[in-house]
Amino acid sequence: MFENKNNRTELETLGEFGLINHIKQSVTLQNPGSLRGIGDDAAVIDNGPGRTVVTTDMLLEGVHFDLTYSPLKHLGYKAVVVNISDICAMNAIPTQIVCGLALSNRFSLEAVEELMLGVKLACERYGVDLVGGDTCSSKSGLVISITAIGHAKEDALIYRDGAKENDLICVTGDLGAAYMGLQLLNREKKIFLENPGAQPELKGYDYLLERQLKPEARLDIIQRFETWFIKPSSMIDISDGLASELMHLCTQSKTGCQIYEEKIPIDHLTSELGRELGLDPTVAALNGGEDYELLFTLSLAEYEKIKDRAAISIIGHMTAPEAGYRFVDRQQNVHELKAQGWDVDVEL
Amino acid sequence: MFENKNNRTELETLGEFGLINHIKQSVTLQNPGSLRGIGDDAAVIDNGPGRTVVTTDMLLEGVHFDLTYSPLKHLGYKAVVVNISDICAMNAIPTQIVCGLALSNRFSLEAVEELMLGVKLACERYGVDLVGGDTCSSKSGLVISITAIGHAKEDALIYRDGAKENDLICVTGDLGAAYMGLQLLNREKKIFLENPGAQPELKGYDYLLERQLKPEARLDIIQRFETWFIKPSSMIDISDGLASELMHLCTQSKTGCQIYEEKIPIDHLTSELGRELGLDPTVAALNGGEDYELLFTLSLAEYEKIKDRAAISIIGHMTAPEAGYRFVDRQQNVHELKAQGWDVDVEL
Repeated sequence: MFENKNNRTELETLGEFGLINHIKQSVTLQNPGSLRGIGDDAAVIDNGPGRTVVTTDMLLEGVHFDLTYSPLKHLGYKAVVVNISDICAMNAIPTQIVCGLALSNRFSLEAVEELMLGVKLACERYGVDLVGGDTCSSKSGLVISITAIGHAKEDALIYRDGAKENDLICVTGDLGAAYMGLQLLNREKKIFLENPGAQPELKGYDYLLERQLKPEARLDIIQRFETWFIKPSSMIDISDGLASELMHLCTQSKTGCQIYEEKIPIDHLTSELGRELGLDPTVAALNGGEDYELLFTLSLAEYEKIKDRAAISIIGHMTAPEAGYRFVDRQQNVHELKAQGWDVDVEL
Repeated sequence: MFENKNNRTELETLGEFGLINHIKQSVTLQNPGSLRGIGDDAAVIDNGPGRTVVTTDMLLEGVHFDLTYSPLKHLGYKAVVVNISDICAMNAIPTQIVCGLALSNRFSLEAVEELMLGVKLACERYGVDLVGGDTCSSKSGLVISITAIGHAKEDALIYRDGAKENDLICVTGDLGAAYMGLQLLNREKKIFLENPGAQPELKGYDYLLERQLKPEARLDIIQRFETWFIKPSSMIDISDGLASELMHLCTQSKTGCQIYEEKIPIDHLTSELGRELGLDPTVAALNGGEDYELLFTLSLAEYEKIKDRAAISIIGHMTAPEAGYRFVDRQQNVHELKAQGWDVDVEL
């Protein structure tokens, strides 16, 4: 909006082919399986013997992101990460992505470069190749659609339907921080709109902002499973909140579940900002989403192998389906777990 | 807009998971390689030994289609076909698709079903499995993003960069019809907006409308190449018009080209409507696009094998790069071929 016109190259001057060529030239392939990348009708991939895993996710301006506080580079990074997270949730290694972009005229070449810088940074970070894509014009907002491809040995794959009664319920990292980061950004945006001179008060909450704007996929955990000699019985990534994801595992595995509020890993900054904003951090963890941590179940027999891992929290166990979905609060009261809130209807 | 409220199920009543489940239940898998479809973090595919081919294409309301004359079922069909066409252009067999949908509240469940009916019809027609996707809400128009995956033996793949000097330039089917179909729809829309009572005058031009609204990919040709014992040296599908696609082959293969106006296959209805609307059918063929026919080059030594194939037209030959891109009109005048028009600047 207030860009220096001298540093702005209109996309019209390049055209679609010019833009694709521009993107192509800045991409290098890292995976030996990426035989052909951008520039033909389709990319060519050799995934070797084993299984090819594929997932897709679309991000729309005004729905999934707000360009007033989401830097384009972060946005490109996040768009890749959310797809890689889905590949990881299959216990597969991400190898390639294709990227569709719908751009309106308000974007300059420099803006697209900034976005693609984030895409490429994520590709480098996760060892993934950008092998193709599609750019087109949009009459309204920015749309980013990414499809990720991964690879796994046949017996390595972990589905949502493998959990058994008594399996431990585990999560990686901590939950609710991305949601709190979003609340912080929303508050600052509101203050800014009311008083454009105001300085944002984001200090000290960098971790929460980063969790919202630049999340990471837990490829590191997938890689460690093998060295820990464990294989989860079911797994899903936490994009929509712990409650909703856990219920997916239960529905598909035909089990019930019981989780404990006191066991849910919550960062102290999530709790602190929760107090400041009057928001329950447990609600943020259960329903906030966008944490991109892994939720998995593990046979009770594997307890010893997992109990002292700093990156893993055991938050409960799977039960018989008749027992339903149970949430035990800090006062040991049992509530029914619901996809939105538990026993109170919480609008997030 | 004028829907019967009784036959309308609001998407809000289903939610995203309800919608995905609804779509999942209506999908059956046909390819043995489609090991897991919709319902986990990612689909699982066994592409066997060989090469996996992947392509993506996004269609946006108001940019790629107009819902006032594009029925949702046709739109779903076309969104799949344009991707399958890209897989075919690699000489690969399409096997799976994933589908991203961004929907606004003005769409009902019945509208999504109609759209998905088209998607599934194309999947059936081309033996492709819908193995996953993503649905999200849109604040403005409808967005459909499809990624298609295909399979080919290593030595079967045909790229854009394999053409040699003197190779024959061939196209399948006929060109320019989809563009003429679009002009017809635009004319009728204008008449309708000026006089809503007017009856559309589309009679007799069904073929042109079908080419625009419900195009087909030339998987049949890919399958015949083997029985004809030919392997093109380069290939591309015609989505942006013959001129632009041919120039892609030339640029990537480092050749020039010479094509003859009189050899370009044009259906008589394309010519007829061209006369009626004052549009040159050759311009429509060169620059109209959306024909989804195949453009390929073939060694001169293969001439006998291809010369009498009804589905194939030989329209010229590749030349030395210094010779440039040449277009010979019916009066034997030589023009420089340009991506938009040849020696006159034609805005389409």
